[in-house]
Amino acid sequence: MRKSNEKGDNMNGNSCTLVIFGGTGDLTHRKLIPALYNLEHDSNLSENFAVVTIGRRDYTDQEYREELKQSTKSFSRFSLNESTWEKLQNRLYYKKLDFTNKDNYCELNNYLLTIDNLHQTGSNRIYYLAVAPEYFANIVDSLRSDCMKVPHAFERVVIEKPFGRDLESATFLNNKIVNAFTEANTYRIDHYLGKEMLQNIMVIRFANIFFEPLWNNKYIEQVQISSNETIGVETRGEYYEKSGAIRDMLQSHMFQLLSLITMEKPNDLSPTSIRDEKVKVLKELKNKNVVRGQYEGYRQEKRVADDSNTETFVALKVEVDNQRWKGVPFYIRTGKKMPKKSTEIVIKFNKSDNLLYDSTHLSDNLLVIKVQPMEGVFFQFNAKKPGTQHKIIPVQMDFCQNCQVGINSPEAYERLLFDVMRGDQTLFARWDEVEYSWKFVDHIIEKWIKEEPHFPNYKTGTWGPIEADELLTEDNHEWINLEGDL
Amino acid sequence: MRKSNEKGDNMNGNSCTLVIFGGTGDLTHRKLIPALYNLEHDSNLSENFAVVTIGRRDYTDQEYREELKQSTKSFSRFSLNESTWEKLQNRLYYKKLDFTNKDNYCELNNYLLTIDNLHQTGSNRIYYLAVAPEYFANIVDSLRSDCMKVPHAFERVVIEKPFGRDLESATFLNNKIVNAFTEANTYRIDHYLGKEMLQNIMVIRFANIFFEPLWNNKYIEQVQISSNETIGVETRGEYYEKSGAIRDMLQSHMFQLLSLITMEKPNDLSPTSIRDEKVKVLKELKNKNVVRGQYEGYRQEKRVADDSNTETFVALKVEVDNQRWKGVPFYIRTGKKMPKKSTEIVIKFNKSDNLLYDSTHLSDNLLVIKVQPMEGVFFQFNAKKPGTQHKIIPVQMDFCQNCQVGINSPEAYERLLFDVMRGDQTLFARWDEVEYSWKFVDHIIEKWIKEEPHFPNYKTGTWGPIEADELLTEDNHEWINLEGDL
Repeated sequence: MRKSNEKGDNMNGNSCTLVIFGGTGDLTHRKLIPALYNLEHDSNLSENFAVVTIGRRDYTDQEYREELKQSTKSFSRFSLNESTWEKLQNRLYYKKLDFTNKDNYCELNNYLLTIDNLHQTGSNRIYYLAVAPEYFANIVDSLRSDCMKVPHAFERVVIEKPFGRDLESATFLNNKIVNAFTEANTYRIDHYLGKEMLQNIMVIRFANIFFEPLWNNKYIEQVQISSNETIGVETRGEYYEKSGAIRDMLQSHMFQLLSLITMEKPNDLSPTSIRDEKVKVLKELKNKNVVRGQYEGYRQEKRVADDSNTETFVALKVEVDNQRWKGVPFYIRTGKKMPKKSTEIVIKFNKSDNLLYDSTHLSDNLLVIKVQPMEGVFFQFNAKKPGTQHKIIPVQMDFCQNCQVGINSPEAYERLLFDVMRGDQTLFARWDEVEYSWKFVDHIIEKWIKEEPHFPNYKTGTWGPIEADELLTEDNHEWINLEGDL
Repeated sequence: MRKSNEKGDNMNGNSCTLVIFGGTGDLTHRKLIPALYNLEHDSNLSENFAVVTIGRRDYTDQEYREELKQSTKSFSRFSLNESTWEKLQNRLYYKKLDFTNKDNYCELNNYLLTIDNLHQTGSNRIYYLAVAPEYFANIVDSLRSDCMKVPHAFERVVIEKPFGRDLESATFLNNKIVNAFTEANTYRIDHYLGKEMLQNIMVIRFANIFFEPLWNNKYIEQVQISSNETIGVETRGEYYEKSGAIRDMLQSHMFQLLSLITMEKPNDLSPTSIRDEKVKVLKELKNKNVVRGQYEGYRQEKRVADDSNTETFVALKVEVDNQRWKGVPFYIRTGKKMPKKSTEIVIKFNKSDNLLYDSTHLSDNLLVIKVQPMEGVFFQFNAKKPGTQHKIIPVQMDFCQNCQVGINSPEAYERLLFDVMRGDQTLFARWDEVEYSWKFVDHIIEKWIKEEPHFPNYKTGTWGPIEADELLTEDNHEWINLEGDL
């Protein structure tokens, strides 16, 4: 699919040691190790590959492997096969270390050299920062210590989100990284980019002739991008209080969806060309109106302040100020405690006054890209109702990728880890993407700080505050909430 | 759907007596009476409605009704309900009469007046000619005799196909009709026009914004229109010997499909505007190459000549010589003893050289309109193959109208009879449509007569003679034979 990677496809990943900071954390247990198991299952790992996880607790390798085996059983998309697991666990190591102390990195490097040697990884390293964000800068700093210098073909760093909490902190972190790694070796995770349907957006747009001619303000009336959850903040109160919906979802995931939908056709399939086009759109974003919300009961959640002004919902209207999109509103929303869990992009086409039939009797022409939990493409158009009467009804065509029996889509992390090993940056955020999205979001947050919100302002199980509806009714539009599994 | 008919929808058909010539024939038994039963079932018949069928055999009304009850049981799309049948049969009459003798029409009219009176039909009449085509002119002549003149709101004639066997005979028949009825009262049956998906073509094209922008030579590479049967000539040898595939299928059904696909948007939904546009396309048709075929064993069929040169297969390439379609080949084929029974229109889009992905690895963008036996729309496009590899695969979206449980599409004849009663001519062929299609077909037949064909030239269960493939390979194209139920 991407020309730049065609070689990589046959290499089963490059030789390397994957060093995971945060070996005992949730991400490692639920996502990273199961993803590695899936890659092992599909023979996508190099023979010259090892994993070292770093944590502060006491474990023998054997104890640690046993614990991860249980996690893999629970979270892998395959049922656990003993011999596959053996193959993975034989190159899976636990290293107890206080990674906040720079002095410990000589010891770490000596340990890694043993592993590198044992598995003939060429001392290539991937450092995966699966720790709380406050440690990011510190670890990156330590990684550039003289102790860590070894000859190698590559040395990459993977930074989990959030990448900063505003433009200032993101810039600070990025400067730390720039001191230690080149941009080409920096992989900023936005796991949404690893999702099947996000990767599919470019293919659908640019590998078919019949979408692109319609993909502009002449034919598209509006676009709605929603990512909603039914759950609340659950056990993540501490993290969420510092983040809120705008940092947790909008700055990262939602803007990635938006840029994939709106970007111009890149010159080629190289990561640089693709990310160049994505950044262009972020630069052209014009903010119109923003609505924030907090569900009833949020302030009573664990580790949440009694008077918290953290938003659990955000909806906004943006425009992309270029020739293709001038005048097309993009409505974006994300919230917790919504009536339905789903991430989807709804493209609503114009009702042309040039149609033969009375448009007041016609339903909308819709193209819906379903990201999760359902994956697929859904198409609504008008057809004749079967029968002797002259009725027109909306009919649907549905390509449901994960409805097909036997389809077991790879997890986002599986794809992303594979790409780090192959050195493909396409599905990772480049610094300027992060930079421009923080600029946009900072501007909104600055205004919010000056105004006390009337929180809570929506009931759980509703589509957010009334103002979110008004945002669209002002334009004579409304949110399109698809029913059922559509 | 059609503005001109909105009133008609609420009228349950207009008051009238339907006079069927050929009361004991197959069409009446298998199609017309079951269609009337279905209309009765759906309360689509006026209270002031009666049916008189005319035949030469001896029947009492009661005997005749009993026989038709059995036919209706077999051929109605509903299971027979006694009280519904009662309601229909109480206004169903049999009249023994030699309709070839003009002198008998005074007697006929007197009989009809009694029925008109009994059922208060306002002496409105529909004359349905469900007899062999050689009787058409004769009956129409007799219908204009003084005896038949009665005051009424309307008097319509329905002519079954074939409407002539060439331009000359069609013109002769039409002149007879013109002497007796206005064009507005003449309903030339092409039962394909009554099929759900043919009616749907206009709705799909002109009630949606996203098809029409792609509906031209910029985006469409070629169109294939196929109507294939697996059966041979069966018991219809006598009829078929005089007709062949070109008269039986091409001149009528296939050209209707072609004109609905290619027509420009009519000014409005009036029958006149629609038929004006359909005729324009027929005038712009340019014939390129034609291939005829006859299956092995045809000459051994019952009532077929040992040295028959009747074609059971025809394939041709035509172009529509206007701005929209210049350069787009339309490949049309119809045949008996083919591998699959299906009528479908395959629209194949260009492989743009402007795509981001290497077009040699991409499948075709297809839009398929399935007419029968499956009814629906099928859409093929390229998407990312789920997985960590960079693969693009074709995926399908399918709107299958008659796959849905509980959908029981009306029969073509049900729709057409209903429309005659309502006075809606949209789904009937106007004289100039017939005229131009005969002109086109006559031209082909003239050439055929001069050249002895090498018949038989295809095996049963194949896609016709090798020349039918060559017709497309010349253009570097090939027939698209969809698999399975697609």
